[in-house]
Amino acid sequence: MKNDLVKCGERVDDLQNGYFVIQDPKKFCFGMDAVLLSGFARVKKGETALDMGTGTGIIPILLSQRTEGKHFTGLEIQAECAEMADRSVKYNCLEDRIQIVEGDIKEAAGIFGAASFDVVTCNPPYMIGQHGLTNPHMPKAIARHEILCTFDDVANQAARVLKDRGRFYLVHRPFRLVELMAALTKYKLEPKRMQLVYPYIDKEPNMVLIEACKGGNSRIQIERPLVVYEKPGVYTKDILELYQMV
Amino acid sequence: MKNDLVKCGERVDDLQNGYFVIQDPKKFCFGMDAVLLSGFARVKKGETALDMGTGTGIIPILLSQRTEGKHFTGLEIQAECAEMADRSVKYNCLEDRIQIVEGDIKEAAGIFGAASFDVVTCNPPYMIGQHGLTNPHMPKAIARHEILCTFDDVANQAARVLKDRGRFYLVHRPFRLVELMAALTKYKLEPKRMQLVYPYIDKEPNMVLIEACKGGNSRIQIERPLVVYEKPGVYTKDILELYQMV
Repeated sequence: MKNDLVKCGERVDDLQNGYFVIQDPKKFCFGMDAVLLSGFARVKKGETALDMGTGTGIIPILLSQRTEGKHFTGLEIQAECAEMADRSVKYNCLEDRIQIVEGDIKEAAGIFGAASFDVVTCNPPYMIGQHGLTNPHMPKAIARHEILCTFDDVANQAARVLKDRGRFYLVHRPFRLVELMAALTKYKLEPKRMQLVYPYIDKEPNMVLIEACKGGNSRIQIERPLVVYEKPGVYTKDILELYQMV
Repeated sequence: MKNDLVKCGERVDDLQNGYFVIQDPKKFCFGMDAVLLSGFARVKKGETALDMGTGTGIIPILLSQRTEGKHFTGLEIQAECAEMADRSVKYNCLEDRIQIVEGDIKEAAGIFGAASFDVVTCNPPYMIGQHGLTNPHMPKAIARHEILCTFDDVANQAARVLKDRGRFYLVHRPFRLVELMAALTKYKLEPKRMQLVYPYIDKEPNMVLIEACKGGNSRIQIERPLVVYEKPGVYTKDILELYQMV
C-alpha cells in the first residue's frame, strides 16, 4: 500500500523518529540546514505554521513530530516537488496535520490571506541571482539560487501572512547576515534570537539560524555556538540529539 | 622621573609587553573588551587611527605596539581621563606616535576634519540611556552608559572622519547587534567582519567585535568563535596569546 506512493527513481529516507520522507536524488534533497531549522523553530501547542518553499516537506514533517502545533502547511512552487511532498505526508499518515499547497512564495498572502499563521519557517535559496548557474531551470538550482524569489520577497510575504507577534524562523548563510537583518527589520520582523552553526569549533560558521518577531522591539539574544563535528565524521552531542541518534 | 607622572591614588598597570598604563580605580579602568578590540583591529603600515572615547588610552597604546600604524589619536571628553591618558603616553615615551585630544565624539569631524583617518576604533558605552544609574555624572557612568553620546552619534562621526574605504572597529554587546548593523549601514559603514566572544564554549556570547568598511558592499565574514575560558579561572590559548602570556 505505502509503496504505491513511491515512484521509480525515488527513495524513502528514514528520519529515525518513526517518520519517512520521499526524495528524488535527481532533484533537491533536504540537508542538515532543514533539520537544524526544525530544531531551532518553536511551535507552541495549538499554533499553525507555514513553511515557505517546503521542497520535500521535511520541515512540516519534522515539526509535526517535534511540536504540539495544530496544523502545518507547506508551500512549494515546483509542481513535481509539491506532489512528491504530498505523497510523503500520506506515507506518514499525517494528512490531518499537514497540507501541501502548490504555489509561489511571492503570492503567499494572496493564497492564505493576511495574518493567517502563528509561525512561518523558511529554508530559502542562499545564493544571489543566477551566478555560476549552468541550467537555471533545474529543480536544484531553484532551491539553491534566488531565481524565483529574493530574500526580500520571502521577508515581505512572511510579514504579511504572520499574525501580530507571530514568529518567523529561517536558516541562511552567514555572509548575508547584514542584508537579512535589514530586510527583516524593513518588514517589521525584528530579529530576536540567533544561533551560528560552526562546522568545527575553530572554523567560521557556515549557517545562521534566526527567529524574528512581527512587531518586536530591538533586542536580540545570541545563543551559544552550535558545533556540528567533534572531529571529521563524528557529530557533536548537539547534532546527535537533533537527529535523535542518542 | 617616570613616577612624577603618576598621581596619588593612581596605579600603573603592566601590559606585559613592555608598556604600562596609568589607571585610577575610582574612575573607569579598561577591561578585556579593550584588549579584544585591539587584537581584532587591523592597522596597516603607515596608516593613521583615531580611538573615539579613549579613556585610559589603552587602545592607542596597545595598537601602537601591535601594529605598524604611523600615528594614533585618542579622543576623550572627560578632562581628567584625557590628562591621565596623556601621562600614560609620556610614561611609555610614545609622544611621537600617540596624541591624546580632549574633546567630544559628537564633534570629531569638526575637530579633525572629514576623511582624515584610515582607521577608527571605539569601545563605546554599552548601556542605553541612563537606566539604573544612581549618579549619571560619575566617570564610570559616562564610560558605560549612553549619556554623552549614542551609538548613532558614534557611527555618524566615525563615517565622517574616515577616508573612503577606511575601516571602523568596534566592540559592543551582542543584544544590540541588529541596532548596531542598522546604524552602521545608515552611515555607509558596511559591516565586513564580525567575531562573537563567548565566555565559555557552551554559553551565550557577551561581546561582539565588528569591522565595518566605509563604502563597502554587503557581504560579511563571520569568524570562528572566540572563547575566553577553558574552565573557571583558566584562559583559552586565544586569550593567553592576546595578553601575550604565552
